[in-house]
Amino acid sequence: MPQPEFLPIQWKSTYLSLLDQRALPGKKEFLEIKSVEETIIAIRDMAVRGAPAIAITGIFGLTLGAKKKSGKVNSQEIESLIKQVFESRPTAVNLSFALQEAKKRVEGETLWESVQTVWESFALEMMVDDLNANQTLGKNGANLFPKNQEEFHIITHCNTGALATAGHGTALGVIRSLRDMGKKVVVYADETRPFLQGSRLTAFEMMEEGIECYIITDGMSGWLMNHRKIDAVLVGCDRVAANGDTANKIGTYNLAIVAHEHNVPFYVCATKDSFDLNLKTGEEIPIEMRKESEVTQFDFLKTHDGKYLFPEGKTSPVGARALNPSFDITKAKFIKNFITELGCFVPGEIPIRLKNV
Amino acid sequence: MPQPEFLPIQWKSTYLSLLDQRALPGKKEFLEIKSVEETIIAIRDMAVRGAPAIAITGIFGLTLGAKKKSGKVNSQEIESLIKQVFESRPTAVNLSFALQEAKKRVEGETLWESVQTVWESFALEMMVDDLNANQTLGKNGANLFPKNQEEFHIITHCNTGALATAGHGTALGVIRSLRDMGKKVVVYADETRPFLQGSRLTAFEMMEEGIECYIITDGMSGWLMNHRKIDAVLVGCDRVAANGDTANKIGTYNLAIVAHEHNVPFYVCATKDSFDLNLKTGEEIPIEMRKESEVTQFDFLKTHDGKYLFPEGKTSPVGARALNPSFDITKAKFIKNFITELGCFVPGEIPIRLKNV
Repeated sequence: MPQPEFLPIQWKSTYLSLLDQRALPGKKEFLEIKSVEETIIAIRDMAVRGAPAIAITGIFGLTLGAKKKSGKVNSQEIESLIKQVFESRPTAVNLSFALQEAKKRVEGETLWESVQTVWESFALEMMVDDLNANQTLGKNGANLFPKNQEEFHIITHCNTGALATAGHGTALGVIRSLRDMGKKVVVYADETRPFLQGSRLTAFEMMEEGIECYIITDGMSGWLMNHRKIDAVLVGCDRVAANGDTANKIGTYNLAIVAHEHNVPFYVCATKDSFDLNLKTGEEIPIEMRKESEVTQFDFLKTHDGKYLFPEGKTSPVGARALNPSFDITKAKFIKNFITELGCFVPGEIPIRLKNV
Repeated sequence: MPQPEFLPIQWKSTYLSLLDQRALPGKKEFLEIKSVEETIIAIRDMAVRGAPAIAITGIFGLTLGAKKKSGKVNSQEIESLIKQVFESRPTAVNLSFALQEAKKRVEGETLWESVQTVWESFALEMMVDDLNANQTLGKNGANLFPKNQEEFHIITHCNTGALATAGHGTALGVIRSLRDMGKKVVVYADETRPFLQGSRLTAFEMMEEGIECYIITDGMSGWLMNHRKIDAVLVGCDRVAANGDTANKIGTYNLAIVAHEHNVPFYVCATKDSFDLNLKTGEEIPIEMRKESEVTQFDFLKTHDGKYLFPEGKTSPVGARALNPSFDITKAKFIKNFITELGCFVPGEIPIRLKNV
C-alpha cells in the first residue's frame, strides 16, 4: 500500500498535529493540539472539516482530555468529557456515532490511564480504517480507467480529498491512485460556489501533490467538455439513497447533467457509510438551506486569526435576496458507477452490495 | 409605448449623464460627462459597458468634443477626434461601426457647429433606435408567455438589461414588458462567475424596478428547476451563427443543457445586429480567453475611485492555474426561440428572417 501523500491529521502521542484549514489557501500551518479544550475550538472554528476528519479529531480530543487526568474515574466524568466534545459540532453525525462507540469501549474501566489507552487505540484504528477504505476505494476507481491510456483529464467538484478525511480522499483518492499507477492526470476543479472548496482546497491539495490542476468556474464544464477530451467526472457524496439518488454539494447535479449530455462518465465516490438504505429515493433526503449572505457577500471567508478576508465583500446591492441550498440531489440515471471500498457498481446494485455491510 | 423605467445614459444638451457602473452595486452615482476626454476615460475605465451603450456614449463624446470648438473644421481634425474616441476601446465592434457612420455623416461639413448638430442628432437617433428595438423585442418576448397565467418564474444569466443598452434591455426587457402587462415576475439571477454581472448588475436593476429577484450561484439552476416551477430561461447573446448556435457569457451553455433536461423553454433575446450569417455554425465564433486571475482571485473588482474591493482577494493558492473562457457556445438544439425586434422564431428560421435586414 503506498503511503498517503499528504496527512492533515497526525497523532504525535503527546499532541495532535492538525492542518489549519482556516489558513488555506494562503498558508500551510499545522496546529499543535494539546488539550480537549483546544480540540473543541479547532472543531467548532472549522480548523478541521469533513465528516471522517471531524470524528477522528474528536476521539483524539477525548484521548488528550484523559491524558490530563490520572487515578480513578467514574462514568459521570467520562460522560461529561464526551458531552463537551459532542457540543463542538452537535450536527456532525459521524462524530456523534464515534463518541457513542468511545463511551461503549470504556465501560467498566476504572482508571483514567486505561481510558486514555482505549481511546488512543480507537482513534488510531478509526484513522487507519478511514485511510484503508480510501486507499481501496481509490484503487477500485483507478481500475475503471483504461489500462493502455497514459493521460487522463478529470473534472471534480467541491473538495473530496485528504483534507476531508484521514488522508488520500475519495474522489481525489482515485486521482491519487491513478497517479500512483504512473498515469498523468490533469484535474479541472470546479471552484464550487458559494464556499469555493474547489479553488481553496482542491487546488491546494493538487498543488501539494504536484498534480496538474486548473480551476474553472461552475459554469464552464460544458465549454470544457466541448474543447478538451474529458475522461471522467469524479465527485464525492454526502448521502446516497437506496435507488442511487445522491446528495452532494450544490452544483453536482448540473455537472452530472452536463456530463451526461457529452457522454462523459460520471462517477460518485463513496465509502460504505454514505449509503442509507432507509431512504428510498433522493426526495427523502432533506436539503439544508444556508444563509443568503454566503451568496450575496464574500464575507464568510475568514483568515486564520478570525479576520474577514473580504471585510467589504458585498458583491450585490444592499438588501439583495438569494437562495442557498447547500446540497442538491443527482438523479441515479446520471450516475455511471459508484466507486466504493467494496468495489464499483451501478445504482441498481446498491441494495445487494450494501445489504450485509 | 411605456417609458423606459431606468435610464443609465441621459443626454442633457450640455453634458451626458452616465450611471457609473464601477460604483455598483454599492452606490448609484451618475457622472456628468462634459468633454470628449471625460467620455474616453468613462469608456476606457468601464464606467459604461455593453456594446450598444458604449457606441452611443462614444458618439455623444464626439458631440461634446465638437461643442468645445467653433468656426471652420477640416477632415483631419474630424478624423483625429474620431480616432481619439476609437482608441478608448479598440475592440468594441459597435463603437467602431458607429464611428465610421459618424464620419460619413459629416462629410462635406465645414463648420464645427454643424458637425456638432449632426453628431448630436445621430447619437440621439442611435439611442432611440436601441430603445425602440428593445421595447419591441420585450413585447414580442412577453407575448410568448401564456396570457391567462398571472405569475412567472424566470432564470436569467449575466446582465442583459438597461445597464448594457440605451434602456429596457433585451432579456431583462422581456421581464420588464411582462411586468408592464401587469404580470408578477420572479427572477432568479445566476450570479455569473467570474465577473458576477448577475449579482452586481441584474440584482441592482431588478431592485430598482421593484421586481422580486433571487441571486443563485451558477450551479444551482438544476436544483431550482426541481424545486420550483420555472417558466422560462431568458438570456442575451453576443453573436448568433446562421444555424442558431449562440455565443454568450460563459455558463450559458450549462444553463441551456440543464433547462432542456427539465423541459424548461430556453429563449435567446437578440437584436438583429447580433446575427452573423457569415458564420455557418458556432464553431466559427472565436472565444476570447481572459486572465486566469479573474477566476483565482477576486481582485478584479474595483470601486469607483480605483481601489480594489478585495485587495487581498486571493481565493486559491499562490500559483494556482485556471481556465477563463469569456464565452461559450450554446448549440441551436437547446434554443426554443430567438426573441428579437423582428419577432420570435426558431433557429431554423434565421436565414429567412434575417435575409433582407
